[in-house]
Amino acid sequence: MQRAALLARRGCCPRAAGAWGRRWSSAPAEAPAVLPVRRGRILTPESMNPQVRAVEYAVRGPIVLKAGEIELELQRGIKKPFTEVIRANIGDAQAMGQQPITFLRQVMALCTYPNLLDSPSFPEDAKKRARRILQACGGNSLGSYSASQGVNCIREDVAAYISRRDGVPADPDNIYLTTGASDGITTILKILVSGGGKSRTGVMIPIPQYPLYSAVISELDAIQVNYYLDEENCWALNVNELRRAMQEARNHCDPKVLCIINPGNPTGQVQSRKCIEDVIHFAWEEKLFLLADEVYQDNVYSPDCRFHSFKKVLYEMGPEYSSNVELASFHSTSKGYMGECGYRGGYMEVINLHPEIKGQLVKLLSVRLCPPVSGQAAMDIVVNPPAPGEESFEQFRREKESVLGNLATKAKLTEDLFNEVPGIHCNPLQGAMYAFPRIFIPSKAVEAAQAHKMAPDMFYCMKLLEETGICVVPGSGFGQREGTYHFRMTILPPVEKLKTVLRKVKDFHIKFLEQYA
Amino acid sequence: MQRAALLARRGCCPRAAGAWGRRWSSAPAEAPAVLPVRRGRILTPESMNPQVRAVEYAVRGPIVLKAGEIELELQRGIKKPFTEVIRANIGDAQAMGQQPITFLRQVMALCTYPNLLDSPSFPEDAKKRARRILQACGGNSLGSYSASQGVNCIREDVAAYISRRDGVPADPDNIYLTTGASDGITTILKILVSGGGKSRTGVMIPIPQYPLYSAVISELDAIQVNYYLDEENCWALNVNELRRAMQEARNHCDPKVLCIINPGNPTGQVQSRKCIEDVIHFAWEEKLFLLADEVYQDNVYSPDCRFHSFKKVLYEMGPEYSSNVELASFHSTSKGYMGECGYRGGYMEVINLHPEIKGQLVKLLSVRLCPPVSGQAAMDIVVNPPAPGEESFEQFRREKESVLGNLATKAKLTEDLFNEVPGIHCNPLQGAMYAFPRIFIPSKAVEAAQAHKMAPDMFYCMKLLEETGICVVPGSGFGQREGTYHFRMTILPPVEKLKTVLRKVKDFHIKFLEQYA
Repeated sequence: MQRAALLARRGCCPRAAGAWGRRWSSAPAEAPAVLPVRRGRILTPESMNPQVRAVEYAVRGPIVLKAGEIELELQRGIKKPFTEVIRANIGDAQAMGQQPITFLRQVMALCTYPNLLDSPSFPEDAKKRARRILQACGGNSLGSYSASQGVNCIREDVAAYISRRDGVPADPDNIYLTTGASDGITTILKILVSGGGKSRTGVMIPIPQYPLYSAVISELDAIQVNYYLDEENCWALNVNELRRAMQEARNHCDPKVLCIINPGNPTGQVQSRKCIEDVIHFAWEEKLFLLADEVYQDNVYSPDCRFHSFKKVLYEMGPEYSSNVELASFHSTSKGYMGECGYRGGYMEVINLHPEIKGQLVKLLSVRLCPPVSGQAAMDIVVNPPAPGEESFEQFRREKESVLGNLATKAKLTEDLFNEVPGIHCNPLQGAMYAFPRIFIPSKAVEAAQAHKMAPDMFYCMKLLEETGICVVPGSGFGQREGTYHFRMTILPPVEKLKTVLRKVKDFHIKFLEQYA
Repeated sequence: MQRAALLARRGCCPRAAGAWGRRWSSAPAEAPAVLPVRRGRILTPESMNPQVRAVEYAVRGPIVLKAGEIELELQRGIKKPFTEVIRANIGDAQAMGQQPITFLRQVMALCTYPNLLDSPSFPEDAKKRARRILQACGGNSLGSYSASQGVNCIREDVAAYISRRDGVPADPDNIYLTTGASDGITTILKILVSGGGKSRTGVMIPIPQYPLYSAVISELDAIQVNYYLDEENCWALNVNELRRAMQEARNHCDPKVLCIINPGNPTGQVQSRKCIEDVIHFAWEEKLFLLADEVYQDNVYSPDCRFHSFKKVLYEMGPEYSSNVELASFHSTSKGYMGECGYRGGYMEVINLHPEIKGQLVKLLSVRLCPPVSGQAAMDIVVNPPAPGEESFEQFRREKESVLGNLATKAKLTEDLFNEVPGIHCNPLQGAMYAFPRIFIPSKAVEAAQAHKMAPDMFYCMKLLEETGICVVPGSGFGQREGTYHFRMTILPPVEKLKTVLRKVKDFHIKFLEQYA
């Protein structure tokens, strides 16, 4: 044995050990003689991945690039009819001046720099949570990789949160921590898409939609199946429309995924319990995998609406549904009352997932190693906030209620003020953090837009940006019924600023109608 | 005009405003009558995306799942021949007890909880950096989304770091902050892959490779083109082998990407300047897009080796190369002396990228909104550490040198101890943080492995784990020449623990050879 082993060793690399210096001596000399003329590029718009080329993402599209250019011009002292650009294109609360929740940041700071655990300036309940998180991290540090599915104790806290929210059990094994909700949605869609030609997977999405969905569908070369929300009915989801879309789609693809955004983005509707039941029954009947994007679950403003999770309704419909319908639902640290977008925290809960697919999911996630551990920690605090009786509870409650109360005020204010403007109609903002008003664009303006090779609402939004500094996203970036026009605007600016924004939009709109009358 | 606008408004949603309560009344009743029997699942191993099914990622593969099971058994008090599992499968420094760099965490804590900017316990240079980062963030907060390409001032700091490192200018516009290096590599590959049949993009990767590459190639349905590193020659890259691989590949695909990992993972070699020149000339000649994975650039231990960046060598080869060859290079917060894996920070620098492709890249990145801002902040501190004369410099220098000095000691120790074992041969660990020794596996053990339907080195590593608690990754997970066997082990455990690990591997190996003699 010894001899064989030694031979194996010798044969392996006879000159290697200690040969630091002369490693490349046997590499062939490749001295270039005369270089040819400049070559064309390898990676060009023509040679690139056509699926990536097809991707569109309006929320950070041309209008936002233009906003950046205008900001630079303002910085360079170029005169404009306004002094600042207001980025109402994206739901980024803290960029609009919202202060972080103190308790969340205290726990995060303690986890980041554990020396602070000895500091008397931090409350005990924050320290308790930080210790719990750190103990569950490799080397007691946010700097270690976590398990690919996420830190165990954080998944347990998420499951406990879901159980409390729904009154229905949740299993930590079904929880996957993610890099924001976008990452979870992308990952599960990636696993779901298969087949070629008429068997290619169809993914049903609402129109208007949040354009992450259409972007991922393009990237994966899946088939986008549009179902239209009912604007006449406050953007309600109508199961007859689902059925229509489904039946049409069956002619050219295999629709097997149904995406729901509730509360709606960009449309702000909150689904009734009845509607959710109908959707679940439809998914059950038509064999659809359900994706429930519930990142705005804390953002419900209308006193007549309540958030119902798909998970809860699924379980309440009885075991025929709850043990059959496959569901993935998503939550995030980015929205709600905390608005911690930058940490990229989120989770996905899966129900009735095939056990082998769970393994496939972990494998796929493990290639990227893990979601940011700081984002996981942020998610933990969202699902495990101070409880009544804890030292930080009162401050936490005050801060949370202040943010949500303000948002409710701004939702009503926005609806009311938009509806005062001739040629603008805005459905009630029941939830989420956007208005998606319908705008009347006169035919002369439509012609002018065509002359500029722009969608009419893009033309409108570009003019709004150039004349007022207000950056909103044209409805065409979310999808809308042919011949209707909208834009999406966040309601996140502070109340006084929001009033100014709304007044400016009103003045602009009236001027625009006059100009193109 | 007013009339038209009013009509438009009225037509749009006559019943909506104020109609909070009766939203879903017109939804059709879908009351299920009798439910059919339990349906099969929609998402199954058969129906799932076959490209995802094909993905393999050994670093967190079956051996790591087994390690997790054993840990649970130990916790439950089940007796084993060892008391703990040592996870030497992954380069996770802090999980192995390495302490975070104090300065880095101080700046991160200040950014996380800016109240601390008033605390006398934090040094001024840390506060200065925290203020600079916060001022560049929306709402002065890590909680805002950043630009999709990353925070501007951090990209400037990265460019300044590259300029200092290489003595060659770097442009912040060419810097993209990423979610760890993996994200950058995935993103650029995603854009590069196109074509069908024999025109499908071929991606050349070293064998042995870091399995992120093969995983992403599977996911994208690209063609993996293997070039073998020269084990006999300390894992050197030989351009003749590149040419062989390239010519063979041209028969069945369109090879247009060449991936290099320097310093090597899992192989630990550091490329000579001459070798890098040869590779660049080859890429120039054969029209290949270069991907340089340089995440171990700070991890060079052999006194005869130096890290040379591809960017630097490219520029020093003159304008024929530097204005033609397309290059993307990658760095990360996860390795080096800081080991901040959990923050998922990284950057990519692109050279000679087509201007329209830059736009495509930003668009693609914007779908995921932005990399974690805390990871971006960590990256900033890595590229902008305390300078001589600053308050924190001495402590920073001490901590950094201590980590890197220890790693150099452990690299030599590991090489020497492995080479004392009959039937194990280990090339010098010039850089990175792994040993990738070649192991002799007797034919009786190969037969036993076949009986267990395992690769021989997987069989070996499973036995090693079960008998010693040491978790390493079989060479088959990285690729190796037919009939040769290896494993990858990190050198990150503290010196005394590493000695124990190496002694245990030795004892195990001798016993294994005896058992299967």
